[in-house]
Amino acid sequence: MARARELGLRVLGTTSPNPAVGAVVLDASGAVVGEGATSPPGGPHAEVHALAQAGERARGGTAVVTLEPCAHTGRTGPCADALIAAGVARVVVAVPEPTQLAGGGAARLRAAGVDVELGAEQVAAAEGALAGWLTGVQEHRPYVVWKVATTLDGRVAAADGTSRWITGPDARAEVHRLRAGCDAVVVGSGTALADDPQLTVRDAAGADVPRQPLRVVLDRRGRVPATARVHDGAAPTFISAAATPAALLAELFDRDVRRVLLEGGPTLAAAFLAAGLVDEAVVHLAPQLLGAGAAMVGDLGIPTMAAALHLRVVDVTLLGGDVQLRLRPARHTEGRAHDRQDAGGS
Amino acid sequence: MARARELGLRVLGTTSPNPAVGAVVLDASGAVVGEGATSPPGGPHAEVHALAQAGERARGGTAVVTLEPCAHTGRTGPCADALIAAGVARVVVAVPEPTQLAGGGAARLRAAGVDVELGAEQVAAAEGALAGWLTGVQEHRPYVVWKVATTLDGRVAAADGTSRWITGPDARAEVHRLRAGCDAVVVGSGTALADDPQLTVRDAAGADVPRQPLRVVLDRRGRVPATARVHDGAAPTFISAAATPAALLAELFDRDVRRVLLEGGPTLAAAFLAAGLVDEAVVHLAPQLLGAGAAMVGDLGIPTMAAALHLRVVDVTLLGGDVQLRLRPARHTEGRAHDRQDAGGS
Repeated sequence: MARARELGLRVLGTTSPNPAVGAVVLDASGAVVGEGATSPPGGPHAEVHALAQAGERARGGTAVVTLEPCAHTGRTGPCADALIAAGVARVVVAVPEPTQLAGGGAARLRAAGVDVELGAEQVAAAEGALAGWLTGVQEHRPYVVWKVATTLDGRVAAADGTSRWITGPDARAEVHRLRAGCDAVVVGSGTALADDPQLTVRDAAGADVPRQPLRVVLDRRGRVPATARVHDGAAPTFISAAATPAALLAELFDRDVRRVLLEGGPTLAAAFLAAGLVDEAVVHLAPQLLGAGAAMVGDLGIPTMAAALHLRVVDVTLLGGDVQLRLRPARHTEGRAHDRQDAGGS
Repeated sequence: MARARELGLRVLGTTSPNPAVGAVVLDASGAVVGEGATSPPGGPHAEVHALAQAGERARGGTAVVTLEPCAHTGRTGPCADALIAAGVARVVVAVPEPTQLAGGGAARLRAAGVDVELGAEQVAAAEGALAGWLTGVQEHRPYVVWKVATTLDGRVAAADGTSRWITGPDARAEVHRLRAGCDAVVVGSGTALADDPQLTVRDAAGADVPRQPLRVVLDRRGRVPATARVHDGAAPTFISAAATPAALLAELFDRDVRRVLLEGGPTLAAAFLAAGLVDEAVVHLAPQLLGAGAAMVGDLGIPTMAAALHLRVVDVTLLGGDVQLRLRPARHTEGRAHDRQDAGGS
């Protein structure tokens, strides 16, 4: 299943509005004989790729899939039928299909005598490549990854407004990988004016890659000039005048965007955070101190420590000399309210 | 040598003004037969403890010591002579003795036919338990560890001034371990007034431990009242009116302090950082956002990104739900000046 998840992650950013599914087919002896991931919309699903690679060796074998195989005919035929036709004896699924439309795959497989296991390592798959698609199904909005590069003391720019470069080359390369895994990259007009970013995905050599996410600028007052780099034609661009983060996400959802990388400044970040519309944070922390300059998050309307916005650390990695923290909003039960009852005094 | 370093770290905070040395004695076959660390001033040095434990098994064996054995008679006899008398065949040393007074140990050992290796894993020992003592010898001031607990967005208090608790119980327990390894804990009058901390070392059960570091408040204007908790008698307290961080450190050095834990607020931290008087930073980062409140470092007089104060990450560890970063000031050659020549555009 770890391999199936990895296969799904590899096509992240290319499949929306469809889920980025990964599939592995094992033969009857347990050897891997096929691997696949979702093609761009209109192309084959992950299972079909993996079965094609496996051929006759799939017969009597096992299919391991991150999402329950579909039972409906959309632009492609039902994957459940393909698995039955290939003679697979067992199907292991991480995430059960949450929609009525595509549901029923497990039932159809079982009716055909296939052994089906649902919910295998479900959380890891749901928080991985499927997160964007699941958020879309459940909340009818894109999944939002907030990326920010900050100094140790929480500054995203120095007193004079300069911000290049807070982080080193390894962290900046990771930003391009993050962009490649998203359908849209969002900034506010403040960032567009201050930094004039191109917001494209570039490879290690600095060249734009063929598939580019939608560049989105939230610019209610039409401040971004036609000469801005986001208008350079290197990738599609969408200028939105949406009044709120939720309204912006609704516009993007209608454009089949399922995964957004929020790269805006403190004001836009605060608006998304305050609205509860950040699903994941990727913080690139540079071991530097400025002592002055713009803070990484604008006013959240939080008056006191007990009201702080709690996240939980998912993982910490070193990126060159910088530190990457991945975080998710903490559920209420994960808070530290009980700590406040400790005897005082430090 | 790793074990010898570990033994030195265990007595950190109890040996000043003497160095916290660790020693391991192996018999002729390479088996560990003795271990020791420096006693409080006036007591035996590390080698003497380790040799006493080894007894006759030291003969023909090896002594592994973090600091070159002394050759002079102070409050205790020369360790070099003790090693010779014990019949040790080889002595492996991390850090060569930097002072004239105690130097000559290696020469005396060699003259007695003992094989001596100097500089084994020297940097690790010099940056470990010996750092405070070495800074004293080389710079005639204590080594300064700056400890700060901050939110992800670099806030040390909320808008209303509340700061309890930013970090969880694991991080707060680590602060007590950090205090125990220092000779003095320093805050400014602002922190003493705002938080009224007790600044003692408490064990897991919350009880004060027997040996307490000196509590130091920098209070130029005599603002801290006699009713403050630092005056509770639970540990020695020193109120300083020193005009600068360097003057304060000079006062502490004269009181045999070799290792200081700086726990002050943003103003005091900025003063030490700007003066280049922070040797190590321990940042406890809580995965919380406030969006407002006091910043972790006050004004450093840094106008632009290129002038940022660079540190390097020594290690990153998880403390419960929080993240601990240990950092040291970066040498100039470790900076990122070359990055600024990259082609622009993010």
